[in-house]
Amino acid sequence: MSDLAVQPAVIDLNADLGEGFGRWRLTDDDALLSVVTSANVACGFHAGDPGTMRRVCERAAAGDVVIGAQVSYRDLAGFGRRAMDVPADELADEISYQIGALEVFARAAGARVGYVKPHGALYNRCVHDAEQAAAVVAGIRAAGESLPVLGLPDSRLHEAAREAQLPVVDEAFADRAYTAGGTLVPRSEPGAVIQDPEEVVRRALSIARDATVRSHDGQPVTVRARSLCLHGDTPGAAALARRVKAELGSAGVMVRSFV
Amino acid sequence: MSDLAVQPAVIDLNADLGEGFGRWRLTDDDALLSVVTSANVACGFHAGDPGTMRRVCERAAAGDVVIGAQVSYRDLAGFGRRAMDVPADELADEISYQIGALEVFARAAGARVGYVKPHGALYNRCVHDAEQAAAVVAGIRAAGESLPVLGLPDSRLHEAAREAQLPVVDEAFADRAYTAGGTLVPRSEPGAVIQDPEEVVRRALSIARDATVRSHDGQPVTVRARSLCLHGDTPGAAALARRVKAELGSAGVMVRSFV
Amino acid sequence: MSDLAVQPAVIDLNADLGEGFGRWRLTDDDALLSVVTSANVACGFHAGDPGTMRRVCERAAAGDVVIGAQVSYRDLAGFGRRAMDVPADELADEISYQIGALEVFARAAGARVGYVKPHGALYNRCVHDAEQAAAVVAGIRAAGESLPVLGLPDSRLHEAAREAQLPVVDEAFADRAYTAGGTLVPRSEPGAVIQDPEEVVRRALSIARDATVRSHDGQPVTVRARSLCLHGDTPGAAALARRVKAELGSAGVMVRSFV
Amino acid sequence: MSDLAVQPAVIDLNADLGEGFGRWRLTDDDALLSVVTSANVACGFHAGDPGTMRRVCERAAAGDVVIGAQVSYRDLAGFGRRAMDVPADELADEISYQIGALEVFARAAGARVGYVKPHGALYNRCVHDAEQAAAVVAGIRAAGESLPVLGLPDSRLHEAAREAQLPVVDEAFADRAYTAGGTLVPRSEPGAVIQDPEEVVRRALSIARDATVRSHDGQPVTVRARSLCLHGDTPGAAALARRVKAELGSAGVMVRSFV
Repeated sequence: MSDLAVQPAVIDLNADLGEGFGRWRLTDDDALLSVVTSANVACGFHAGDPGTMRRVCERAAAGDVVIGAQVSYRDLAGFGRRAMDVPADELADEISYQIGALEVFARAAGARVGYVKPHGALYNRCVHDAEQAAAVVAGIRAAGESLPVLGLPDSRLHEAAREAQLPVVDEAFADRAYTAGGTLVPRSEPGAVIQDPEEVVRRALSIARDATVRSHDGQPVTVRARSLCLHGDTPGAAALARRVKAELGSAGVMVRSFV
Repeated sequence: MSDLAVQPAVIDLNADLGEGFGRWRLTDDDALLSVVTSANVACGFHAGDPGTMRRVCERAAAGDVVIGAQVSYRDLAGFGRRAMDVPADELADEISYQIGALEVFARAAGARVGYVKPHGALYNRCVHDAEQAAAVVAGIRAAGESLPVLGLPDSRLHEAAREAQLPVVDEAFADRAYTAGGTLVPRSEPGAVIQDPEEVVRRALSIARDATVRSHDGQPVTVRARSLCLHGDTPGAAALARRVKAELGSAGVMVRSFV
Repeated sequence: MSDLAVQPAVIDLNADLGEGFGRWRLTDDDALLSVVTSANVACGFHAGDPGTMRRVCERAAAGDVVIGAQVSYRDLAGFGRRAMDVPADELADEISYQIGALEVFARAAGARVGYVKPHGALYNRCVHDAEQAAAVVAGIRAAGESLPVLGLPDSRLHEAAREAQLPVVDEAFADRAYTAGGTLVPRSEPGAVIQDPEEVVRRALSIARDATVRSHDGQPVTVRARSLCLHGDTPGAAALARRVKAELGSAGVMVRSFV
Repeated sequence: MSDLAVQPAVIDLNADLGEGFGRWRLTDDDALLSVVTSANVACGFHAGDPGTMRRVCERAAAGDVVIGAQVSYRDLAGFGRRAMDVPADELADEISYQIGALEVFARAAGARVGYVKPHGALYNRCVHDAEQAAAVVAGIRAAGESLPVLGLPDSRLHEAAREAQLPVVDEAFADRAYTAGGTLVPRSEPGAVIQDPEEVVRRALSIARDATVRSHDGQPVTVRARSLCLHGDTPGAAALARRVKAELGSAGVMVRSFV
């Protein structure tokens, strides 16, 4: 344990950004870009028009925030929250397409796409579905670089990524309840989402510094994560994100991207 | 004139490809890829799903056909044939997005995007509309490379491209009637599209070898072109394209891409 | 049994029509409209632009073909063939929307929407998924009339329709293999689709006249159907449909819609 | 003038509603539905998913607000604000489709579609473009009822509607500057939109009671309107709408729909 004492904990903060479309806005992109170290940028399939993608990339690049491709099922009407039985080859191609589209804006901003994170229903499905997970990884590989994959530890997605020699980055959620087994309590259950900001801050610290969080039934659970996901689509999200970051700093945790 | 005798005429053959979407097919991609030297690949805005884009890129690369981004207004329902008053910055971003999406498939196939050609209503609008022409060029520039722009000589598009230091490539149409002034007879007028295959072949030769074509009122017109556009969405299109190519070869015209 | 001898068998012939979108065509609408008695008209979610919907309705009405709403998941890119986890209330509203859109064209043609049939992945899902089946039925009910529901016997869809007091119409497929249990052999299995036109005609007769078909392992199976589904998106489809209709007529089976 | 004294002024208040899509919200529908007498409901082409359409119809019907079809170009990405050269027959069919889709929700709520108002770029285009105006009217007629058309006086839209025997309803804008000739000052000019709430209230009163408004260069202009359009997509919109309504009431103007 003494080794840990001399090596400061390091954590990345990621959030979903650019999740408007045309006239519609959702995420407070500017406020969150001043806090996070990794920006999951919507690529046009669940949200994210080209203009928004460009602007978020420009601001991320200007603020040294790493740009990630937040890839999704093609489902604007459902915001990518409806699981779809997309055949593997179609899904892989759809992932490549989105990464390519984002790359052009990242590059124009003097940056590059630094990682990939699936969105919504695709994210959830790739926890358990080995075929779709492999398709997502194939789509990333076809896009040509060994981009890190951001997701849940022990997910099929990370398994597939490792098999394909892609770096994986584990993330955790400070505002989600965990089971004693270390998995997320499903959103359909009561208490799945933690509303109290104080509690969210406490859990962020506990995960980042001690790799531990208290489960919804009171057990200490090991949660290893190189990145914390902050939600950006709720009122007060940016303020809470700022507090989390400040408290992490005060506690000696370094906030730094994983790229 | 003796110089011309020793320097053979050179022409590129381009066609619109990959213009299906999902379940729907339109262009006979495989047949045309065995003829043309430049493939205008639909990028998803008027046609072109990711799977089709990948397959066309793979086959083009395998056959040494140059891949071009056939960029369009966002209009699947209208196949990109309805002019749209898209604000300049939006249009530029939409162009960049499409180029980026295609790049990923070109790169995965071991090739690259070699040029850009606007599609349908955008193509027609950029002949006269300096603002949209400049927006298209801005979108190409933002995509990061000095990609050649394929279009009509004397168009606003080529003007804007030259100002932005992008190479321009003039194209001509063997199956379209020309005015004595060297512009295309609008499709709405009778005789605008030449149906007779023999006549199309004759005109292709005349343009490629002599930079001349007979206008719809019988005058010889100078038509300089480095590329001939062949249509791929009509029955018999591939057969006609093959004949044009064969006759060009017999007449000593070199068929070669401009990239 | 002597009663059956004096009462001739009656069957409806239905086919999917209007499955183009904008520039793209798929089904040979005119040819099939001269054969079928029920037209499953695509309503814009998996296929079917407004112009096509109008034209199919006009021709159906002129030929006394009953117009049905072929409702689907919202998925143009996947042609409605990718199952989607659409929440029940969303799905119901999407169904109502499509029925309403079609009604306007049916009415303008002097006809009306006579029934509803789900398309593709939604059809398959509603065989087993009671929640989505109930949502489809709720969407039909909300559209305001007691429209018959066309689908598989013993499906969750028909169960939900009956509970909601909607008429149900059983359909069978002359070109699909059946198990000894009377269900369709999944398309993923060899021999699931019957290619031989003679065999398709034989099976159509056998189903229509005797309510029986031979299963893929040679057993006689009872298949009761008031409608036979003919496929319209393959070469030779219209010719085969015409033959089926002629043979049914020769065998004394009345071909008549169920509405 | 004595006649006017005994006949109280009557005005309708209309606003654009239901202009979200899926996850995105824009208009404060509930607040505005408690004020307006006519709801311009988005029908899915520029905004308006089926669920939102249903909910707005239910609430409008419950509050005796008349439901209007706010029809648009098919342009979610541009929110219907980009003029499109849609061929007349396509445009007519797209209008019919939208009206039909809305009707089903209006009917399910125990109401009906009471009028049609084009949205955004289509609205603006139909002021001057006789062909598109006629197409919109043809689309309304095909939808089967003699629905009133809400728009600008002296517009091509109203001309086409009159020719087709459709009732027309003139509207005015209390928050837009008028020229001395009685037309709207284009949004591109300074002062085109009036920001000061007091001034908006004053102008609403002046239009509703006296059919007069002061032009941007200080002349009194006659502006006859049976309906005032209130904007619903800005902060404070609902509060301002409530004040306008209250002041109209205090001034003896009856606020009542035109249907």
